[in-house]
Amino acid sequence: MTRRGEFELIASLFAPLSSEASGALSLTDDAALIDVAPGCELVATIDTLIAGVHFRVDDPPDLVARKALRVNLSDLAAKGARPIGVLQAITLSEATDDPYLEAYARGLGEDLRHFGVPLLGGDTTAHRSPAAAGRGGPFTITIAALGEVPRGQAILRRGARPGELVCVSGTIGDAALGLFALEGRLPPVSPEHYDVLVGRYRLPEPRLALGLRLRGVASACVDLSDGLCADIGHICEVSGVRAELQWHALPISPAAQRRLADDPSLKQLVLGGGDDYELAFTLPIAHRSAVQGLAAQTGIPIAIVGRVRESSGHERDGVTVLGENGEPIQVEKSGYTHV
Amino acid sequence: MTRRGEFELIASLFAPLSSEASGALSLTDDAALIDVAPGCELVATIDTLIAGVHFRVDDPPDLVARKALRVNLSDLAAKGARPIGVLQAITLSEATDDPYLEAYARGLGEDLRHFGVPLLGGDTTAHRSPAAAGRGGPFTITIAALGEVPRGQAILRRGARPGELVCVSGTIGDAALGLFALEGRLPPVSPEHYDVLVGRYRLPEPRLALGLRLRGVASACVDLSDGLCADIGHICEVSGVRAELQWHALPISPAAQRRLADDPSLKQLVLGGGDDYELAFTLPIAHRSAVQGLAAQTGIPIAIVGRVRESSGHERDGVTVLGENGEPIQVEKSGYTHV
Repeated sequence: MTRRGEFELIASLFAPLSSEASGALSLTDDAALIDVAPGCELVATIDTLIAGVHFRVDDPPDLVARKALRVNLSDLAAKGARPIGVLQAITLSEATDDPYLEAYARGLGEDLRHFGVPLLGGDTTAHRSPAAAGRGGPFTITIAALGEVPRGQAILRRGARPGELVCVSGTIGDAALGLFALEGRLPPVSPEHYDVLVGRYRLPEPRLALGLRLRGVASACVDLSDGLCADIGHICEVSGVRAELQWHALPISPAAQRRLADDPSLKQLVLGGGDDYELAFTLPIAHRSAVQGLAAQTGIPIAIVGRVRESSGHERDGVTVLGENGEPIQVEKSGYTHV
Repeated sequence: MTRRGEFELIASLFAPLSSEASGALSLTDDAALIDVAPGCELVATIDTLIAGVHFRVDDPPDLVARKALRVNLSDLAAKGARPIGVLQAITLSEATDDPYLEAYARGLGEDLRHFGVPLLGGDTTAHRSPAAAGRGGPFTITIAALGEVPRGQAILRRGARPGELVCVSGTIGDAALGLFALEGRLPPVSPEHYDVLVGRYRLPEPRLALGLRLRGVASACVDLSDGLCADIGHICEVSGVRAELQWHALPISPAAQRRLADDPSLKQLVLGGGDDYELAFTLPIAHRSAVQGLAAQTGIPIAIVGRVRESSGHERDGVTVLGENGEPIQVEKSGYTHV
């Protein structure tokens, strides 16, 4: 295997991605310097993606990089924050040879430019080769994303109140169906539908523009990483409420609708599967009329999918999904847990 | 193996470590909110530690946590920054059962309190079990540390100028000798010396108080993680200078002196070994008289170990170490590279 040394790797592949930000110090220092705009709070989040767990070992490396960045930007979007930069810690494996890393850095650079976000710093480590004394291990990416939001305006998970509307951006279930398709666990899918679903799994779209516009409008917000019911369940838990969703109101893409027509049990993937990275948020009734405007301004469809209800008093009463006749649909997999 | 689920792990072990910081949102949200003091810049750094690479799999888990925190705080110290919080992403392995993680969290909590730094957020993931479809992998800790420094006052690596003094805090070589002792690669060592050396390897001391006082005094600073010559070499490279150190001026602990008396070839560990996490900095001659005061105020010995010289024009001419008769000592291992 050909592989650059640590310093050469940083200088050749990653330092160019920091060139827009003087505070990144060309990645030649121990730390980065970052200006947070006056009157703003810093918003910080960190997420790890592991080959074979959070992405497939045969996923194209440029898309792996872009996904790792995007899932972190998605966390900032859910807070209504504007991204200001990212730190990246990667641990190389036997599989990450020079061509892999070049493609990875190319994808990362492409997306950093697309979102106007600089690489501020990082760390590059490597697993011991299994052939040597070590145990080896998979390629792992940890990104810490930093953003800013005017003080007091971040949208938290804890603000949902009974009576409010529950809304979801885009369409849901596509990413989980895409993973199933990649794994050969779906009946034959037309090429265009296959591309749509797999594309949604491999390259989520962080809803940054929508997040910014939800400030002062949404009472709580979360990005859908663990699954629709699990993530809205997180809002419920910390807000002390429960949520009632209508199955027929959920936004389902044509590609996903076709899969559901073939196999209704795939409903469970729509409700429990993760990785869509859409925003789910709660909205005071008074802001109901804002929904159409938000969708028009951002070009992202927004669906009203249910209501926030008073807690029943049961611990973790969470999210109920009602079918067409008002009967609750059992959700088998209540979200993805990473441990 | 008994192991808590992701959410239970966070709620029981890590959320208590965030209780001092309201912006950590009890670790129940997607991101943390952080206030940077007016007039200050944010300083951000990230470092990964891998079991079997950066710490030994049999190192006590509470010390592993404390070391992971401290190496990141050390990066902030080198910039003259005050820490304001950390984000932690851990990837669990087969070996990190409940008792391991409880000890880990206990150590982390102890040190966060000690340094007055809150845990602001994190991510908990797990390697696939090798018994399942996955490949497994070692316990991995990535910490992103955030600090603040009055705007324009951060001490960078790039400020060293010819004629300046090169200084080092504490003593050097102990950590590398400690690792050798743990690995059984040293001749018999007295119990007290063994404890000193191993302690320095397992539990470095981030020189935060010294870093704060070096603002406006030091022209460049780095923490010694890769090795004395390698890290001072980083200053040289980005400052466009070289450095000449005097072997006899290097601060060596009694425990290390004893090892060197037994085996002079261990000199190489002092010059090339890493993990001491002392600060090396350059000082304009005009500030020479400040050295004693800095040492007295912080209680940390400071040694003047050499001079900054004009670049010879050779690429990467870096660091020369001169022996007692002025002859250059060959440095075999020019620092630890993590790839």
